[in-house]
Amino acid sequence: MSKLAQSVLSGERLSLARLLTHVENDTPEGREALDFLFAHTGKAHLIGVTGAPGTGKSSLVNQIALSFRKLDKRVAIVAIDPSSPFTGGAVLGDRVRMRDLAGDQGVFIRSMASRGSLGGLAQATSGVVQVFDAAGFDVILIETVGAGQSEVDIARLAHTTLVVEAPGMGDDIQAIKAGILEIADILVINKADHAGVESAERALKSMLDLAHPVPKVFQHHGQILPAQRESGKPDSTDPKSILWIPSIWRTIATTGSGVPELIGAIQAHATHLHQSGEWSLRERARISAEFDLFTYQILMERLRASLPESKFEQTLDSIQKRKISPREAVNVLLSKDDK
Amino acid sequence: MSKLAQSVLSGERLSLARLLTHVENDTPEGREALDFLFAHTGKAHLIGVTGAPGTGKSSLVNQIALSFRKLDKRVAIVAIDPSSPFTGGAVLGDRVRMRDLAGDQGVFIRSMASRGSLGGLAQATSGVVQVFDAAGFDVILIETVGAGQSEVDIARLAHTTLVVEAPGMGDDIQAIKAGILEIADILVINKADHAGVESAERALKSMLDLAHPVPKVFQHHGQILPAQRESGKPDSTDPKSILWIPSIWRTIATTGSGVPELIGAIQAHATHLHQSGEWSLRERARISAEFDLFTYQILMERLRASLPESKFEQTLDSIQKRKISPREAVNVLLSKDDK
Repeated sequence: MSKLAQSVLSGERLSLARLLTHVENDTPEGREALDFLFAHTGKAHLIGVTGAPGTGKSSLVNQIALSFRKLDKRVAIVAIDPSSPFTGGAVLGDRVRMRDLAGDQGVFIRSMASRGSLGGLAQATSGVVQVFDAAGFDVILIETVGAGQSEVDIARLAHTTLVVEAPGMGDDIQAIKAGILEIADILVINKADHAGVESAERALKSMLDLAHPVPKVFQHHGQILPAQRESGKPDSTDPKSILWIPSIWRTIATTGSGVPELIGAIQAHATHLHQSGEWSLRERARISAEFDLFTYQILMERLRASLPESKFEQTLDSIQKRKISPREAVNVLLSKDDK
Repeated sequence: MSKLAQSVLSGERLSLARLLTHVENDTPEGREALDFLFAHTGKAHLIGVTGAPGTGKSSLVNQIALSFRKLDKRVAIVAIDPSSPFTGGAVLGDRVRMRDLAGDQGVFIRSMASRGSLGGLAQATSGVVQVFDAAGFDVILIETVGAGQSEVDIARLAHTTLVVEAPGMGDDIQAIKAGILEIADILVINKADHAGVESAERALKSMLDLAHPVPKVFQHHGQILPAQRESGKPDSTDPKSILWIPSIWRTIATTGSGVPELIGAIQAHATHLHQSGEWSLRERARISAEFDLFTYQILMERLRASLPESKFEQTLDSIQKRKISPREAVNVLLSKDDK
């Protein structure tokens, strides 16, 4: 069907770049291609990497990409950048990346800026990831910044979520990460050659104890191995363990120190996900969220098409004049739509 | 109708607290009360305060609240905390607040944690703000952390958005704020007694020049005063100016230094919004976004009610097996729903 999708499947990089733009802009061509490519997805390992500015997260993502390349994996990087198109943020990040990864046909980098619409960024990211997945990239690194709902939404896309910290970011920064810690499968203290690495690790450990009083798996499967429940600390590098307790790893992204060990932990997590059945559960959750998003999109498009624009404006007028509440107005509009 | 809503209108604090919980949890009682109270909203000045951890934003919010109290304004504080309920973040913040503001009947503080659902936090925050508005609070301070889509969404609620910086947060932090700068009406450099305040102000000024190459108002009204276009720098404390270029203010929240001047700028902005017509435009944008959110919610509830749960599960199964794409599946399901 979709010519563009066909050439993406055959590994054509220029078509890939073009399709990504279509998907980001949610064009009809992009939608058609996504429908066509969907059957080819589900093979890639999606790895979310999140962390505050100043943790050296981007350099770490580059090092992780380089390490996977040495294992002969094809790697895509999706960098979510909350800064606006005209400020230098995303561009600068890409330049640094280009230096390390330029000319390698096994790597593809895509930066994405925030979108205004409801769930827009999560949806666009999901589409971009599906294109890379279908195009045969083995590992897809999804890099997000900071703590916020959008980061959590995007982390839900990933099979494995890395949370990156750095020593000396202050107690306040640590506290803010609490919400993010709950989504972490693997914790990384980057800049491990900086002062304060010991206290950063202590802080993370105590937060982990708070964040994981009941092992995650217990909520999903309703069963737990007695020995694991007692010890509370199974070996998180043992993929046969039903439990996964996040482990903490030290890296120095500027030299690559600690990165091979981190790759080992990432791969152990993938094996764990497969053996525990969690891989499929996470995929199910992702599909379910995406289903909701499409339902919203399609229902809204139908509604807008079925009613004249002036009707919407009149309704907004009535709300702004406090004649009717927003929820009541929606109910009135939808009941008219039924007739 | 709603007894709870009635006692909130009559200024009953315990009912207010109870209603806020209903609204946060989106209960039927909460929804009914919001519909009832909506006619009483639209009077409060909604002020968003956003900034990275470590900028002293919470202390500044307290000082702003104290200053508005001296002007005999009733003040509500809505603190959006991305950390989870069981970690200490929100609780600690509230304790600090209690010390300064405890026992003052003209102040009400509410902390809110992040929600998982699509647009959930923005919706809950909007509801909480409406309750405070109807309850007669003159000023509602909405405090959010960091840079991210959720912060931008919440900033859209506000009439006036303050972005708080601090000296010495590093270039990386500055860069990340670029997206946030675009939503700023007023910039604050807090901790102005710390080293680096000059260079922080220089950095902000140069980012402002980048972020506001064309004055905002030009996009809305399609007209601009020639003198303002030439100078490019109208006095942002002059409310009669059609243009509003964000101004930069220095504060020391620990002593309250600079806060009265900041309050002056906030009030000048409110006057500007009224005189330029922007107040009504911002409200319209907010109402429109809320309308979309309710439409989504109601359409999804109807769809779920009209189809058996097993049908959804079967559909998700087919998607997970890559037999059908998510978008195609939604279209199939919705076309069945039509019959």
